[in-house]
Amino acid sequence: MGQKYVYLFSEGNGSMKELLGGKGANLAEMTCLGMPVPQGFTVTTEACTKYYEDNKTIAPEIEKEIFLALSKIERMTGKVFGDQQNPLLISVRSGARASMPGMMDTILNLGLNDTVVNGLASITNNERFAYDSYRRFIQMFSDVVKELPKSAFEAILDDVKGQKGYKLDTELTTEDLKDIVIKFKGYYKEKMGSDFPDDPREQLMEAVKAVFRSWDNQRANVYRRMNDIPHSWGTAVNVQTMVFGNTGDNSGTGVAFTRNPATGEKKLFGEFLMNAQGEDVVAGIRTPQSIEKLKEIMPEVYKQFASIAQKLENHYRDMQDMEFTIENGKLYMLQTRNGKRTARAAINIAVDLVNEGMITQDDALLRIEPKQLDSLLHPQFDGEALKKVKPIGKGLAASPGAACGRVVFSASDAKAWSDKGEKVVLVRLETSPEDIEGMAVSEGILTVRGGMTSHAAVVARGMGACCVSGCGDIKINEEKREFTLGGMTIKEGDYISIDGSTGDIYGEKLSTVDADITGNFEIIMKWADTRRKLKVRANADTPQDAKKAIAFGAEGIGLCRTEHMFFDKNRIMAIREMIVAQTKEGREKALNKLLPYQQSDFEEMYEAIGKRPMTIRLLDPPLHEFLPKTQVEIRELSKDLGISPEELRAVVVKLHEFNPMMGHRGCRLAVSYPEIAKMQTAAIINAALSVLKRHPEYAIEPEIMIPLISEEKEFIFVKDIITSTADEIIANSKQNMRYTVGTMIELPRAAVTANKIAKEADFFSFGTNDLTQMTFGFSRDDAGKFLEYYYDKNIYEFDPFIKLDQEGVGDLIKIGVNLGRSTRPDIKLGVCGEHGGDPSSVEFFNLLGLDYVSCSPFRVPVARLAAAQAAVKDK
Amino acid sequence: MGQKYVYLFSEGNGSMKELLGGKGANLAEMTCLGMPVPQGFTVTTEACTKYYEDNKTIAPEIEKEIFLALSKIERMTGKVFGDQQNPLLISVRSGARASMPGMMDTILNLGLNDTVVNGLASITNNERFAYDSYRRFIQMFSDVVKELPKSAFEAILDDVKGQKGYKLDTELTTEDLKDIVIKFKGYYKEKMGSDFPDDPREQLMEAVKAVFRSWDNQRANVYRRMNDIPHSWGTAVNVQTMVFGNTGDNSGTGVAFTRNPATGEKKLFGEFLMNAQGEDVVAGIRTPQSIEKLKEIMPEVYKQFASIAQKLENHYRDMQDMEFTIENGKLYMLQTRNGKRTARAAINIAVDLVNEGMITQDDALLRIEPKQLDSLLHPQFDGEALKKVKPIGKGLAASPGAACGRVVFSASDAKAWSDKGEKVVLVRLETSPEDIEGMAVSEGILTVRGGMTSHAAVVARGMGACCVSGCGDIKINEEKREFTLGGMTIKEGDYISIDGSTGDIYGEKLSTVDADITGNFEIIMKWADTRRKLKVRANADTPQDAKKAIAFGAEGIGLCRTEHMFFDKNRIMAIREMIVAQTKEGREKALNKLLPYQQSDFEEMYEAIGKRPMTIRLLDPPLHEFLPKTQVEIRELSKDLGISPEELRAVVVKLHEFNPMMGHRGCRLAVSYPEIAKMQTAAIINAALSVLKRHPEYAIEPEIMIPLISEEKEFIFVKDIITSTADEIIANSKQNMRYTVGTMIELPRAAVTANKIAKEADFFSFGTNDLTQMTFGFSRDDAGKFLEYYYDKNIYEFDPFIKLDQEGVGDLIKIGVNLGRSTRPDIKLGVCGEHGGDPSSVEFFNLLGLDYVSCSPFRVPVARLAAAQAAVKDK
Repeated sequence: MGQKYVYLFSEGNGSMKELLGGKGANLAEMTCLGMPVPQGFTVTTEACTKYYEDNKTIAPEIEKEIFLALSKIERMTGKVFGDQQNPLLISVRSGARASMPGMMDTILNLGLNDTVVNGLASITNNERFAYDSYRRFIQMFSDVVKELPKSAFEAILDDVKGQKGYKLDTELTTEDLKDIVIKFKGYYKEKMGSDFPDDPREQLMEAVKAVFRSWDNQRANVYRRMNDIPHSWGTAVNVQTMVFGNTGDNSGTGVAFTRNPATGEKKLFGEFLMNAQGEDVVAGIRTPQSIEKLKEIMPEVYKQFASIAQKLENHYRDMQDMEFTIENGKLYMLQTRNGKRTARAAINIAVDLVNEGMITQDDALLRIEPKQLDSLLHPQFDGEALKKVKPIGKGLAASPGAACGRVVFSASDAKAWSDKGEKVVLVRLETSPEDIEGMAVSEGILTVRGGMTSHAAVVARGMGACCVSGCGDIKINEEKREFTLGGMTIKEGDYISIDGSTGDIYGEKLSTVDADITGNFEIIMKWADTRRKLKVRANADTPQDAKKAIAFGAEGIGLCRTEHMFFDKNRIMAIREMIVAQTKEGREKALNKLLPYQQSDFEEMYEAIGKRPMTIRLLDPPLHEFLPKTQVEIRELSKDLGISPEELRAVVVKLHEFNPMMGHRGCRLAVSYPEIAKMQTAAIINAALSVLKRHPEYAIEPEIMIPLISEEKEFIFVKDIITSTADEIIANSKQNMRYTVGTMIELPRAAVTANKIAKEADFFSFGTNDLTQMTFGFSRDDAGKFLEYYYDKNIYEFDPFIKLDQEGVGDLIKIGVNLGRSTRPDIKLGVCGEHGGDPSSVEFFNLLGLDYVSCSPFRVPVARLAAAQAAVKDK
Repeated sequence: MGQKYVYLFSEGNGSMKELLGGKGANLAEMTCLGMPVPQGFTVTTEACTKYYEDNKTIAPEIEKEIFLALSKIERMTGKVFGDQQNPLLISVRSGARASMPGMMDTILNLGLNDTVVNGLASITNNERFAYDSYRRFIQMFSDVVKELPKSAFEAILDDVKGQKGYKLDTELTTEDLKDIVIKFKGYYKEKMGSDFPDDPREQLMEAVKAVFRSWDNQRANVYRRMNDIPHSWGTAVNVQTMVFGNTGDNSGTGVAFTRNPATGEKKLFGEFLMNAQGEDVVAGIRTPQSIEKLKEIMPEVYKQFASIAQKLENHYRDMQDMEFTIENGKLYMLQTRNGKRTARAAINIAVDLVNEGMITQDDALLRIEPKQLDSLLHPQFDGEALKKVKPIGKGLAASPGAACGRVVFSASDAKAWSDKGEKVVLVRLETSPEDIEGMAVSEGILTVRGGMTSHAAVVARGMGACCVSGCGDIKINEEKREFTLGGMTIKEGDYISIDGSTGDIYGEKLSTVDADITGNFEIIMKWADTRRKLKVRANADTPQDAKKAIAFGAEGIGLCRTEHMFFDKNRIMAIREMIVAQTKEGREKALNKLLPYQQSDFEEMYEAIGKRPMTIRLLDPPLHEFLPKTQVEIRELSKDLGISPEELRAVVVKLHEFNPMMGHRGCRLAVSYPEIAKMQTAAIINAALSVLKRHPEYAIEPEIMIPLISEEKEFIFVKDIITSTADEIIANSKQNMRYTVGTMIELPRAAVTANKIAKEADFFSFGTNDLTQMTFGFSRDDAGKFLEYYYDKNIYEFDPFIKLDQEGVGDLIKIGVNLGRSTRPDIKLGVCGEHGGDPSSVEFFNLLGLDYVSCSPFRVPVARLAAAQAAVKDK
């Protein structure tokens, strides 16, 4: 017997997510649990993979299996697919292994044609309903399968409504709908050159193919890249008997969570619409009612649903997100899954479930998506400032956090403004999957329509972005690029502020305050700290950043960059003087001016971090970065420096580099101008000695780090400059202080010669940003030009500057770690690239047994949790 | 017993080169052979290493050993160091493992002071000689050990001569010389703040230290870098009893070769000066007499010398380069070593020695420095052109070859002009070690003074550069930057031509003709071909280059770059049109214009190479390289392209890259614009099919190479474009033809994921230029700014773009080779970076078992010989 590509719901179970996708596995599990699920079957993810292998065709054996399963469903339901008397209608939905909300396409009411529609009319005794379903099906099929524009069908509908003078769809009569069906099919034929497919079997196969195809569309690829989902997983297809929430006032449809997905509160939370199909709730076109109301309208159904919800939560030991339909008073469960939630809710639910005895602390740690924590760490509106302002309106508090930015009205504008460095708030009537990229770059999202489970709300919560949805008072004028609310007119580019925790909207710029770690968040972080093996440090260049990092739990500073300290007005003059100097003496004179500044910088840093360790990196960027470029700037600076503009221009020209990333920078500066390293060492050691004198309990041991080393002898040369300078200062001080000298490992050559470098270096810090650039041979600044093509073609599935490329760059790190330990078994190993705050990368670093990761202060809690998860998984 | 740091000549032998240096080992060997060698001892290279380890001090135990050896020499000679009656005087000379002519410093007459000088006067019965030696010693010691300027001493000498109205040094009386000694010592005290060291033991130790120190001077470092000599080898110091060639007309000194070092002719060849010290011959200040003359002047001494020369050649089985001194009619051998020779001489001598039965063919191959062959492969003056011109002067034919370039008068000017891309001929009164770098960048060297063994001649032959020396008719006016010769005045920047094989000098630009491989050269190449395992291909982009490569023995084309083909006027317009096009269709339209050009390019290439294989690389450089940059160019091009200058400027700006080396280039172009790869594939396949039709015997199998691959999926994507295009064309042609698709391995990521890429790739070609850039993280264009500092500080000892960095880059190649073979054991492996023509790199590639190297046509014979040497050594 060959491979099995199709499973009835009754043949699967919840553990088969890889094969059946999340939705399919859960439908099977609910079926096993005896819950009221409209029966159906799942075409497996392997069938999807085979579809791509077979050059985007469905193999005959799979088609055969599909129709065999369909015939079993016919027997179960007593209905017949394509029958005129008692027709079986089905929905076709995608269902990947990981939930991808709104990303994949769905077709409802499949199986209708000009004769079947009469059967539907007669069994439901509702001809208008039948034709309404039919015209919806034609539109949906044409859109999803044939990529005909939705808007064209809406225009036809509007046309008919206009002729008749209707305002609402509900005013359309059966005859109107029949007319619309004819017009829809006419449009279809005009555009496609063939008749709308009459054969329900053809409709089904086309729909299955469309689901497979949609796995590879751009929206899906963008979402996968943002969420680390491999393309190779594929999607399953769920084919399910239709039940109708839109047969009348005794029917309805809804979605609900077993706990509040925004706060975690243990209380059934959801929305429903009577006389509606599922898409109406999710798409946010009509604003639905709270699930509470269902208790009043249909108490029995509510009771049954609440009981099922509780059973499902107990069964899955996690908060559930469920879809249901009521058809003529009978409840059907269409889906359940672990619910998406805000970071706050995730934390509260995890701690509550531990307290309720349902899960362990380890489980709780694994339940929280580390990336999500980000949203808890960003600023909230300043409470004092809030007291003085009045909101101009209020929407639903759909995704918490505070956002302030300039208004834009489209996803592409959001991207364009954000590319220019502007913070934006995206204001939309409603959002759709096409908006994903624009949403990702926005500080917050504000929508006019849609509830707590609308597309905007679900996606924003997933991203940790702030969202206020369903503010129906807003009047948008897209043409003028403005909207009015609370008597105010806000134009594109004006500032607004929105509070995703309250739903309040402010027509002005509001100041914010930093978040802190308290309550359940603190509990989770403590659990994480007891489990993780990796230490977590922060990258910080200022005392403010260092303090913030410590507040977020950083155990030290893993990377203190010294170049940012030079951009202050007084200092930049001195560094420019140094660059322009033609002699060692000239350079030393200029550097001597910088020394006191640098020293006090480091004193402040040491004061800020107390007993914690700090790694200070010597100057890294090419010197020309400090010089002016335009003619005007050159003229001005030359006056200040007391040299001719020609001389200064000559220096600028001389320092020009073809490939600055591969130029005269890093330790190369210390090799050509040792006096720079000497001054920086003096500043570090003097600062440490001075703070140590005031605070002997800090037990400071400076860690001095040399950037961009590629060769042992190069390291020795720079190390000698450092030690001779430091030893002399310490000896003269008559104080006792130890210090260490280590290096970045950020060039491939450093990784493959790490055994030699480790003989001399006290520690390594893997600079994964530069290492990624050199390993791939593309610079971060230039890769934007072509990486989009790579994502489109699934050559790269994620941005290697965000998520570590474990295969290539990771291999070089592994080589570096092993070689380094071969000559210095106790060498201290860390990471200070941006990957230090990326959860999947942290897991990799944990497996390599590194000592610490260092990341931006805001990512510290993320790294702490990710490190704990890695340790728990590795147990 | 501790380590032995000092060996008497009688304690060593010729096999101890590593310990005693070349000079010391050969002095020991000659001593063993019973030849007349002034006795002495050698301080070992290990003592030098220890000197550097001990922070540039000489350990007491070494000092003790030195004086113990000295006392043994005293016993042997019956003379006493520092004695007033019968003083022992010594020379102190450096002697590294490999010969480094002119690079290290020498001190003669050491042991003299105000009292010893009288002893010397009385035993030689020549007070004038004694004081002349003394003043020479003071000057030499002050210069070499204390770095006081030679010119200051010469000024004092000139001053005395001026006062007395003398023209020649020989006019100076004993009293004059005594006066000069006092003045020299006065100058010394004034500058050094202490008396000139009286104590001969102190003089000796200072001199030994100076030799050690000179191992690390800049000239030595430059020479080592050019000749691949590691800094860690260190130099030995030879301390030898002085014999005097300048005691009168019965004395003399000379250098000679057992065969002619320019042609290889088997005939004693050399020069000598009567009544002179050795430095006078080598420094080229007086023009010496041919060794033939010695037969007339001192027939017995000549006979003895000729017999020793023959014995030495037979003993070493190689042409010898010897120094000798005649002291009062008695011959002393001061040095022998395998003689430096021109490439032509090397070949002739090697073949002759095989014919004489002295060495094997394997030996012969190892005797020839592959790099030297270069000089045989460069153009000679066109014989026809030569007939029409008359030389304006003639010098010695010191180093063969033809050179034509603009005149410069200093080494620094040579560098400056050459950096600007000018070909230069360096014209000097005489050259000195300070000129090395300037000589290296010159097409040829022309000197006024000095013979066949002058500094200029020796160094030029070593470099394979053309040199005409000793043209005494030249009058140089350094101030005006011009010289006159044969009635012509030549200014800086004027063209001259010099012929190093005839000594002729032409006051104009002369055209040249290519060299070819005939005679003994051909024999050597045939021997090489029977031994080597590596195949040798050439990098060639034009039929002319391909033909030249084949004439030089290339077995195919390893790299045919396609970008150079685009710069023709018609083509560049089409490629610019393609770049500016906004749509795929627009690009395809432009590419279709290029297709016939590309196809005929490849047809010509296939016609040129016949049955040999050819690897064609798809477009590699970033597209912006094809666009104009200046405003004027943009205006003109925009007119031609029929778009506005603003549009064109926008394209240029959009394509600007921060780090072009790490930008949108290589296969990234094929990923973003598949139509480029499609056009190029069509051109290659069409061309191959068309030539194959005319010449079925060529059995063409195109090898299509994808540049800059970093990832398996990227390779598959581009390979799919190639195969789908190629397969369709071949199918339509109804011809049979196979082709292969492979990749460059030039990014670190490609090397570490080579197992995956090899599953798909038919062959790898290691692109060592780019791989070196990415592994070190510096670009070739920018590294010039800091590499000098690295050489100065001995961090890098050679240019990794010329000689492969085996430790780092080589390690990645090894990883790539092993991983590649792990999934495709028979994968074809080659190298097409410039390292493919570098002998030490070729040896490394041979050890890795690669299939071929590919280099520039001129380097093909070099690579053939280097590959043979590698195979012989690896036997």
